[in-house]
Formats: sequence, structure tokens, C-alpha cells
Amino acid sequence: MIFGATGDLTRRLLVPALRNLRRNGLLPDDFALIGVASRDIGDDGFREHLRKGMEQFGGGARDDIDWFLQRTRYVSGKFEGPEPYKAVAALLPAERNALFYLATPPTEFQVIARRLGKADLLREGENTFRRLVIEKPFGHDLPSAAALDKRLLRVAHEDQIFRIDHYLGKETVQNILVLRFANGFVEPLWNRDHIDHVQITVAETVGVEGRGKSYNGTGALRDMVPNHLFQLLSLIAMEPPSHLSAGALRAEKAKVLHAVRNLDPRLDVVRAQYGAGRVGDAAVPAYRGEPDVPTDSSSETYVAMKLGIDNWRWVGVPFYLRTGKRLGRRRTEITVQFRQAPLALFRDTPVERLPPNDLTLHIQPEEGVQLRFGVKIPGPTVRIDGADMKFNYSDVFEAKPSTGYETLIYDCMMGDASLFQPAETIEAGWGVIQPILDAWENDRDIPLAIYDAGGMGPKEADELLARDHRRWRRIIR
Amino acid sequence: MIFGATGDLTRRLLVPALRNLRRNGLLPDDFALIGVASRDIGDDGFREHLRKGMEQFGGGARDDIDWFLQRTRYVSGKFEGPEPYKAVAALLPAERNALFYLATPPTEFQVIARRLGKADLLREGENTFRRLVIEKPFGHDLPSAAALDKRLLRVAHEDQIFRIDHYLGKETVQNILVLRFANGFVEPLWNRDHIDHVQITVAETVGVEGRGKSYNGTGALRDMVPNHLFQLLSLIAMEPPSHLSAGALRAEKAKVLHAVRNLDPRLDVVRAQYGAGRVGDAAVPAYRGEPDVPTDSSSETYVAMKLGIDNWRWVGVPFYLRTGKRLGRRRTEITVQFRQAPLALFRDTPVERLPPNDLTLHIQPEEGVQLRFGVKIPGPTVRIDGADMKFNYSDVFEAKPSTGYETLIYDCMMGDASLFQPAETIEAGWGVIQPILDAWENDRDIPLAIYDAGGMGPKEADELLARDHRRWRRIIR
Repeated sequence: MIFGATGDLTRRLLVPALRNLRRNGLLPDDFALIGVASRDIGDDGFREHLRKGMEQFGGGARDDIDWFLQRTRYVSGKFEGPEPYKAVAALLPAERNALFYLATPPTEFQVIARRLGKADLLREGENTFRRLVIEKPFGHDLPSAAALDKRLLRVAHEDQIFRIDHYLGKETVQNILVLRFANGFVEPLWNRDHIDHVQITVAETVGVEGRGKSYNGTGALRDMVPNHLFQLLSLIAMEPPSHLSAGALRAEKAKVLHAVRNLDPRLDVVRAQYGAGRVGDAAVPAYRGEPDVPTDSSSETYVAMKLGIDNWRWVGVPFYLRTGKRLGRRRTEITVQFRQAPLALFRDTPVERLPPNDLTLHIQPEEGVQLRFGVKIPGPTVRIDGADMKFNYSDVFEAKPSTGYETLIYDCMMGDASLFQPAETIEAGWGVIQPILDAWENDRDIPLAIYDAGGMGPKEADELLARDHRRWRRIIR
Repeated sequence: MIFGATGDLTRRLLVPALRNLRRNGLLPDDFALIGVASRDIGDDGFREHLRKGMEQFGGGARDDIDWFLQRTRYVSGKFEGPEPYKAVAALLPAERNALFYLATPPTEFQVIARRLGKADLLREGENTFRRLVIEKPFGHDLPSAAALDKRLLRVAHEDQIFRIDHYLGKETVQNILVLRFANGFVEPLWNRDHIDHVQITVAETVGVEGRGKSYNGTGALRDMVPNHLFQLLSLIAMEPPSHLSAGALRAEKAKVLHAVRNLDPRLDVVRAQYGAGRVGDAAVPAYRGEPDVPTDSSSETYVAMKLGIDNWRWVGVPFYLRTGKRLGRRRTEITVQFRQAPLALFRDTPVERLPPNDLTLHIQPEEGVQLRFGVKIPGPTVRIDGADMKFNYSDVFEAKPSTGYETLIYDCMMGDASLFQPAETIEAGWGVIQPILDAWENDRDIPLAIYDAGGMGPKEADELLARDHRRWRRIIR
């Protein structure tokens, strides 16, 4: 069941993902798709809508379109009323498994969940499941997230709720886990004794792209930090789980977020908004010149922050996080900078500074690993330069067509919740940033920096690190 | 002063190295070259001989030939008699610095040194030096090395004696030091807690190449192990020196060799000799079919051994060394294999075995660093494969023409003995292999394996590691 079945998410991502699953033999023959939406187009109208989408987003493949359309039904109605749920119930025998995928605006989550509960559609049998899949944002602050979770838990158990953060596909998550825990040389170095600091960067080149209205009420902090950036943070910082089950992973990730030290919204956080500039060859407008954005908007499109994690492994190691739109290059990466070797050995030689030892995990768009280390520049004196050892996944492994949703939907059917977020981590994430939201709400004097579109972000973010005698990794060369 | 000035070493390596130094402005204008040899060819004959060599080995450059020839003199005579030394003394004012380079067979070292001493040529002034440069082999076992050192020390102080192991140019040595001590993440891993074992490989494709007569009395063990392989061993295994001075480096290297555990020549060592085979596209004869080699020779052309180092850092970590002629590929490399991560985390997934984490230092012919680690193979299940991060010096730094002797001669002039071997490490090296030499001498039943030319060495060497459930890194793919 897809709620919001005539929307963009369904057509561009969910249905293509289902088709890829089908191609890999991972959908059962008695699969059925029931679309629910407000438009009154009937089964045939919806099938026609789907067919067009599948032709557009199928990469040329058409042989499976009929297979899907034969298994497709449509229910129309207002999500607030009982009618569509009755119609769904009529199509869905009690002994069938079902995923209810809420591909709707987040404002609809609570009402749909309540109605599903009332219509008894979330009751699981001894051997059947009923699962609720929701997309971020999960609330817009800590109280609203807690309220949402509370309402969802009135109609479903926590293990029936799958909160998707599609940003972290299975590959990325598991690559980080494999790098950390399948390599003997990593874990001994992975602590405050050997790591100087960590940087997590999610840089986008896009602006708000027509989403000005909804984005302006949200901003970069809410949009990116408690979900995407904190997911990466917890994967990098967590203790080794005892195994790879969802429960063990979730518990370790939540522990990281609970250990984040209270931050000072004035000292440890920089917010900024893009001005006009150039991205690549194109001139782009300032955020305040985007459609549907107020010309005096104070919404941030960039946020940088410094976090501390108060546990035995990490105390004293700063984690610097930044994310922004309209930056000079699209890249998601995590850089772990090891502590420098003592300089003593090379003190009599003309060495200005030893190059830092960085281990960088490239997550998007390229996937790879890079280790920066010091080598001797050939010549009669000992001069040391930084050099890179590199590994790119694409050099070794073939890329497969994927929307990023395949394994998520598949795991959801299988009941493997490792890649989904439980209420606990959602709320822990909001808990970390709530003081920032409060400060921005209550103290209008907290500055909003303006940065040039197409650049590296605001100088205030550079100053955040410069105070600690550190520097961001360059986004652009 | 070069003794043995009409020989191959002088023409092919020493003079080209001097010319490279001159080109880099590192020879003073009052430089002079005095050749000493037995052939009675006179100044002009020697100059003509040098000119031909410089034309042949100068890579086309001729502009400096006259500069050298104007500064060249020649002395002929038998090394045993006093005459040539009188002639040298007549050409060499007491206040001039001098290097006496013994480019002669090792049988001449003692007599030349004694005669130099008698002629008072090794007496240093308050501001002048007199240095003696000798080439390996430094003795042929522990007693002969000790006897040689004793005789040399009768006529010169230890710090006047420069024992060249040209195999380890400054770059290689200092690259290893920089890698180990300029990178913060290396030293914490560099011990028995994190390293499983170390492999040192010096593989040659050449055979004895016309040196059958001298090689057959020597063999691979004497020829390669106490000098080349033990130099690499001590660079990899030594404690961080307090600074990069010759004294500090030598002391730390010697400590490693003194800490090598007594080995069992029957259990821990494999000797072998090449049979006929193919190297590249060429059929090559067996060692016993080489010119000047007895058809029943039992000299080894290959040796592999397992060493232990009894100190806090290394006890329990085996060091496997191997070197041989007529192997499938020329390469000198050191591989440090880290301990595996505990398998527990991935126990529920179809992981056969985690790939080993190897750090390989490529020394010859390519120079570079390579780190092997485990990555996730893209796909729905967690399967792990080995991948390599690589760095090649030649990708980043331009190669300069070099014979390998330039910095050695330069350091010798500068009095920097870091790259030269003191009596202590020479004798410590012989001390380690003396039990093997004794066993081979006294127990003719110790087997001599035969391996195919062009291959990976004898299966007995594979068995040496297989007993420890380990494998050699492949020489050829």
C-alpha cells in the first residue's frame, strides 16, 4: 500500500525500486500494489499513470510493466476520513502481509496511522506482518518528534514502524562497518589516543530547487543534521556492536547520540545562508531570491557545528559537522585525522610541518577510501610531503542500477530494521539540536552569515575550526 | 683515491656518480681523482681509459669530461708493496682531505689498509679527514669479519671507516624511516599486539651472470643476508632513534640484530639452488650448468629463513626473509601483515575469511606503499573482499638520474655515516647466520632444494610458512 501514490516519490523512486527488486527475483508472485491518494482516477486511471511513470523512469525496460499493472489497484479518498481505509480493508485479506508506505507530506503521518489503526489494518497475525514505513522528517523538533512517536506507538509496536533515511543506503552504512570492524589495523587507532579530530561534510551544489516554501520553514539544521549527519556520526563513533543485528546496531548508535556533550549554540554552531554566486558555469540567485522564499528570510541553508562525545573512547576529540546547499562541489565524506607523530625525530631537518594523516571515507558521489600520509621527497635532504593512498569502489566493482530504495524496501519486507531508525535515535538526535533550535528561536541576535553560492561556505565556519588551530578539508581544489 | 681504478665498479658506477655530484655542484673545484691500479698505463693511459668510460656511461653528456681529466692522476703498482703508497703520498699534501675508496676484491682490503697506515696516509689533521671506503663483502663469516675489523682498526679509527652497502640508497632507508616515524598512525600499530608477521623479499631474476667462480664460494646466504636483508630487517624492526644521527641509527639497528633469537638451522632455514627453467621468454640453464660452476655444486642461490626478535616490541612475531636468484620477478619488498580483526561481528554472514591487512613497502624496482584492507562487495549480503590503497613514488615525484652511489659518496665526504655500517652491526649480522654456516659446513645431510628458474622459489620455503599457517606474498601473479 502506498499512500500518496500519485506523487513524485512513488513514480521516481518507489516504483523503479520495486521493479529492480522484481528483476532480481525478490518480489513474490502474489505481490500486489495498492495505491491510495486523493485524486479520483480509478484503477484504470492509476494504472495509466503508473504506466507512464514506468516508461519514463524504467531506463528503457518495459517487459515487466504488465506484471505490475495486473497486480495494481487504486483507492481514492481523503486521508482524514474512514472511507479509503474501508476500501483498503476490503482489498486486503487479514492473513496477508502488508507494508503501508506513507509517501505523503509529514503532516499526514499521524492521521493516516490513526486511521489505519482504527480500521484494524495494523493488527499482525501469528505469521503475518503489518508494517508502517515513514519518510523523514520525523517531527520538526524534539517535542513534535516525541509526540509523533507517541501517536504512532498507540496504533503500532515500535518494531512495526520503519523510519526510512534513504540517504544512507545499505552500501554506505555497511561499508563503514566493514572498514571499521573487518580490518585489524583500524580499531586500535580508533580512539582519543590516536585521533585528533573528525570532520563530516555533506555538501550539495543544488539550491532549494522549487521547494522554497517547505524548505524555508525547515532550514539546513532540521533538514540534514538530526538524520543524515547524525547517522554518519554514530556509524563513525559507535562502539563495535556485538553483532550486526538491527537491535545491536541501533543500541550502539543511540549510545553515541546520548553521549554528545551539551553544546553552546553561540560558540559551537555557525548558521549561514547562500548569497548569489556561480555554481559551475551558471550564475545562481541568492536564497532570498529563490521562488517562494521571503526576501528577508532568516532560514539557514548551511550549518556547521562542533560536537564532543563524552565517553571513554572520544572525550577530547572534536567532531566537526557541516552541511550546506549551493556549495562548490557535491560531496559527502568523513575525514578522520590522526594525531601527528612527535616532530622530534626530524627536528634537525628542514621540515616545516609534517603533513596530517587523514583517513577519508568518500561516500557520495564517489565511494572510496583515501589515506594521506607523509613520504620523503626524493633528494639529499629529508623533506616530507603528503601523499595519498587511494581506493575507489568504482575501479574495482561494477555499479548496478539502483535508486537507493531497493534494499530498504527489501529489508522492510524481510523485517530487518538495521537500516531504519527507532524512536530512540530520532529523539536523541533532536535532543542534541534542540538547544540550537531554542537559541535561534529566542535570540534573534545570533548572526546569520551569508556565503557565496559555489564556494566553500562561510568564513565563520572556517573560524570555528581556526579557534582550535584546525582547518576544514577543502571541498573544491 | 680509488684503488682498483681500472675496474668495472669505477667505470660503471663511481665515476658516473662523481659526475652527477659535479653536475649538482657538490664537488669542490679543487677536487682531484687519483687512480691506483696494477696496470702500468701512466697518467695519459688512465685518462684515456676514463674518457672512454665516461663517453660510454655518461648518457650523452660530455661537457664535464675535461674538468675531470684535468684533475686526474694515476699511480700504478702492486697493492702489496710500498711503492704505490709512496707515489700517492707524493701527490697528496698532508693538509688535504682524502677518501681512499677500495674498489678492489675483498682479499685486498687488509693489505691496502695496512699499507695506507704504514705510509701514514690515514693520519687526520685537526681540520682534515682521511677516510677509508670499503665495499661488501665484509668478511665471509663471523671470525673473518671480526679479523678484518680488527686489522682495519689498527690503522684507522672506526669513524674513519665507511663500509658501503650500496644496495640501500639514502632514499630507501629514509623512506622507511619517514613512513614509520613521520606518520602518527604507524607507530601505535608497530608491535606484537597488532602485527601478525613480517616478510622481507629480495627476489632477483638474474643468475650468476659470469660470476660463477666467486659466487660459488659465497652463496646466497653470505651474499645477501647479513648485509642487505638484515639492513631492511633492522630498519623495519628498530626502536625509534632519538634523532637521525648516524650514531643513534646505528645503535638502534645493532640492537635489533643482537635481539635476534638463536635460530635452528635445520628447522628455520631453507636453502635451495636453481634448476633450469624460463625467465620471461628465455630458457635459462640450471645453476650447475653456469660457466665456472662445478656440476655438483652445493652452493645455494636461494635462502629463506624465519627469525624471531626477542624484545618487548617483537617477541612472538615471526620475520620471514627470503632471497634468491633466477626467480620469476625482480622485486624487493617488505610486507607487514597486521593481525586480523576478530571475526565475530560478521559471523552470521557468508564471509569465508577476512582478507589480511598487509602494508607493503615496495623498494625495488618500483618504490611505493600499498595497504590491503577489507571492503564490502556491493550487493545485498555482506561479502568482504580485499582491496588495495596504493601510492607510487613515480606517480608523484620525478626520477633523477642516479647510480645509487651519489649520496653515499657525498655523505662520505660530509662525514655522515648514517648509511654506512659500523663493525658492530656487521659482526652482529654475521653472528646471526654463523650457526647456519656452521651447520651447513658440518652436516652435509641438510637438504639443498632445487627450484625451477623463473618461478617463486622452492616448495620447501612455502612449507616453512605453511607450518605456521601462513603464506608468502606472491612474487608473480
